[in-house]
Amino acid sequence: MDIVITDLPFAVTADGVVENCRITVHNGRIESLKAESVPDGSGPESVPEGTTVIDGRRFCALSGLKNAHTHGAMTLLRGYGDDMRLQEWLEKRIWPAEAALTDEDIYWGTRLAALEMIKSGTTFANDMYFSYPEAYRAFRDAGVRGAIGLAMFDFNDADKRKAIQATVDRLLEDYVDTRGGDSGAEGGGAGGDGCAGVFPTIAPHSIYTCSPDLLRWSAERAEELGLVFHTHMSETQQEVADCLSTNGVRPWQWLERIGVLNRIAGHGIAAHGIWMDDSELKLAAEYGITLAHNPASNMKLASGVFDWQAVRDRGIPVMLAPDGVASNNNLDMFDEMKLAALLQKVHTEDPTRLTASETLAMATGAYSDVFAPWGVGGPLREGGPADIVLLDLDHPQMTPVHNLESNLVYAANGTMVDTVICAGEVLMSGRQVKDEEEILRKGRQLARSLVQRI
Amino acid sequence: MDIVITDLPFAVTADGVVENCRITVHNGRIESLKAESVPDGSGPESVPEGTTVIDGRRFCALSGLKNAHTHGAMTLLRGYGDDMRLQEWLEKRIWPAEAALTDEDIYWGTRLAALEMIKSGTTFANDMYFSYPEAYRAFRDAGVRGAIGLAMFDFNDADKRKAIQATVDRLLEDYVDTRGGDSGAEGGGAGGDGCAGVFPTIAPHSIYTCSPDLLRWSAERAEELGLVFHTHMSETQQEVADCLSTNGVRPWQWLERIGVLNRIAGHGIAAHGIWMDDSELKLAAEYGITLAHNPASNMKLASGVFDWQAVRDRGIPVMLAPDGVASNNNLDMFDEMKLAALLQKVHTEDPTRLTASETLAMATGAYSDVFAPWGVGGPLREGGPADIVLLDLDHPQMTPVHNLESNLVYAANGTMVDTVICAGEVLMSGRQVKDEEEILRKGRQLARSLVQRI
Repeated sequence: MDIVITDLPFAVTADGVVENCRITVHNGRIESLKAESVPDGSGPESVPEGTTVIDGRRFCALSGLKNAHTHGAMTLLRGYGDDMRLQEWLEKRIWPAEAALTDEDIYWGTRLAALEMIKSGTTFANDMYFSYPEAYRAFRDAGVRGAIGLAMFDFNDADKRKAIQATVDRLLEDYVDTRGGDSGAEGGGAGGDGCAGVFPTIAPHSIYTCSPDLLRWSAERAEELGLVFHTHMSETQQEVADCLSTNGVRPWQWLERIGVLNRIAGHGIAAHGIWMDDSELKLAAEYGITLAHNPASNMKLASGVFDWQAVRDRGIPVMLAPDGVASNNNLDMFDEMKLAALLQKVHTEDPTRLTASETLAMATGAYSDVFAPWGVGGPLREGGPADIVLLDLDHPQMTPVHNLESNLVYAANGTMVDTVICAGEVLMSGRQVKDEEEILRKGRQLARSLVQRI
Repeated sequence: MDIVITDLPFAVTADGVVENCRITVHNGRIESLKAESVPDGSGPESVPEGTTVIDGRRFCALSGLKNAHTHGAMTLLRGYGDDMRLQEWLEKRIWPAEAALTDEDIYWGTRLAALEMIKSGTTFANDMYFSYPEAYRAFRDAGVRGAIGLAMFDFNDADKRKAIQATVDRLLEDYVDTRGGDSGAEGGGAGGDGCAGVFPTIAPHSIYTCSPDLLRWSAERAEELGLVFHTHMSETQQEVADCLSTNGVRPWQWLERIGVLNRIAGHGIAAHGIWMDDSELKLAAEYGITLAHNPASNMKLASGVFDWQAVRDRGIPVMLAPDGVASNNNLDMFDEMKLAALLQKVHTEDPTRLTASETLAMATGAYSDVFAPWGVGGPLREGGPADIVLLDLDHPQMTPVHNLESNLVYAANGTMVDTVICAGEVLMSGRQVKDEEEILRKGRQLARSLVQRI
């Protein structure tokens, strides 16, 4: 689809905020992004036939937000357990519910997540959950980009390990794009063709649920196939204490010792990364592992506070994420931005920490290129993927505009997003998304049925 | 206006969440709020002529949110200074801008604030700023409830004190409702007649900008006229340190010693209340002073963390507030709720602190009746003021509903509010508010002109 967005008062780009500009989209990419003169009122000019013209006068444009760590289908558990201690929450609420999930639940739960993403301006998510094919199909049907990982556990049980390895190997055969072309009926398109890419990752859950063998096997597969290795790391103090007592070293040192870090250098992403000491930050920097920062989840579960400044000072790649909605309870990256910035300020007693501009850069993917091989871009730029969000400025919360980036981080919310373009396709226009009614209906029905089964 | 809201799947009331109910409004009050059978599809029944019928099927109802501390006209400074240290922010940004404000700026800035309130489900604000008549007129024209205080300072200068006292005395003559009826052309209606009340408070800015004489005089006027005394207290560590070094006691002890607390018992409200020790919490409890908790502002300016549990354990009245938008940067009480709950959890390392239910109670005014004499109510109840917000459940973020209160606190935002009723008048329906276009246009124009003058 060719698209022209005219008369935009503002666009947040890789080179800062550009005023009064026009964006043209061709073949899934941003062909041009240029300042233009203020509209002269002479009406729409002629554009090539078949081009979609979007009147940008009420909007600011920004890159689609990137959700660096999530569990999509947990939308069905939104609000199912809140204000509880972690262990009680897991044992009484989350695990029993997850044990009852069907493939249908995962498909529609992930569709609901993808719908929520689109309706709040997010065009990519790095997902980890319990059914690869259903999650893959849901992202594909929704039209958003997705890195899909099957959550792996073995709890140090060799039989369990072999079983999950076999499952993942079968999936990889079906889903890995061998780059010569489509590797199967559903393909694994990298997005450069204007079709949003949905692609696999290798996703061992964590060091406390996976054996060293499973972690190392995962790293080997990720290395061999050039895939992203996605795990949880350093989320709680307990995790660090347990690792120290079992292995005699801290979690990142453990990952290095068992031969994981050297195999995932530059293509690993670790969710949370809160309880890291200097030696661990140094390892993350050395191996170029991206940290996915989850402020809402870390606050709601009382996990701890991410050390933004230490991470940036060491040049560690970093992205932003809402985690699953069961510990959030939404996927709105605008909420995440405000929480991230405000929490850093109060926690460090320094209001200059994590500025609006830095926060927006983190949320649009400026500080990590771990997913770049699959077409996931950073802030808007010519030649970059046409993943574009148009946010409606005609809200009192967005009035006036002294500083657009401040308004976006501190005043906006996802419900102000009017239009979403992903890989050159318009997924939402005037807040209308295809299949919305059906997705909401199925989500309600399956969530009700799920809790009745538990 | 008589109103019937039918077929509501949920209403958050003083007695918890009621499912499948109907609300009738008569003469500015909630006449009935009752569970009703699921609609039988037979279509709308007959209602008395002139009654407005609202189809509630897509909505949940909650009480209009109460903003306990704000500086309305600062909307014109939204995003004008961010990510700065307090003193630099004040000296380089806020004070020069405020010195340039005109009465027209304050009127339209406050209209913009009131518009934002309505569009995010807030029906009452406790305002403190620099022009009483303009703020009064703005709230009145918008149709929301407002407690309006003229911010008083004297910086220990007797001439300044006498001047501001004279100004306030003149205003009080014009605006205080003497309860025998309207006290002047604009009245000061208490809201019981179906007309939203706008009413004066006595608002000395703080102990560090006001002399003891001005503070005591303010308390005397508040006592004599039965008005609310509104001030800032215990916002920063500096404020406490300065008070200790100048007066030898902490701020609340100082307020008691100079004869303020005994005169404002039960009708005082103190914004922030962060840096209070046990003796000060005891004084707040003893004198029944309401604390206005401002999580976004306290985080953004790195002021500190409010101690929710200590406040509730002592039974101190407490309300929620966004402060002015220059330190927030919006007036969305849904943002405030999520921030408040999440911050308590991570700060205390206890995820059970400040539950969704408690947060919603705080935001709807359940924990303080300091403004009750002027018709400001708490959660929805029969006989209470008809200040009703209908939030649209037809959003992915609100799907499914396992726990409505969790969804409202952790997943919703103000832009999901569809309809707002205040004192029985419909101020917003289908997100349409009267004069919106003009208010946004004036807001933009005056903000631009303001920064050009600075």
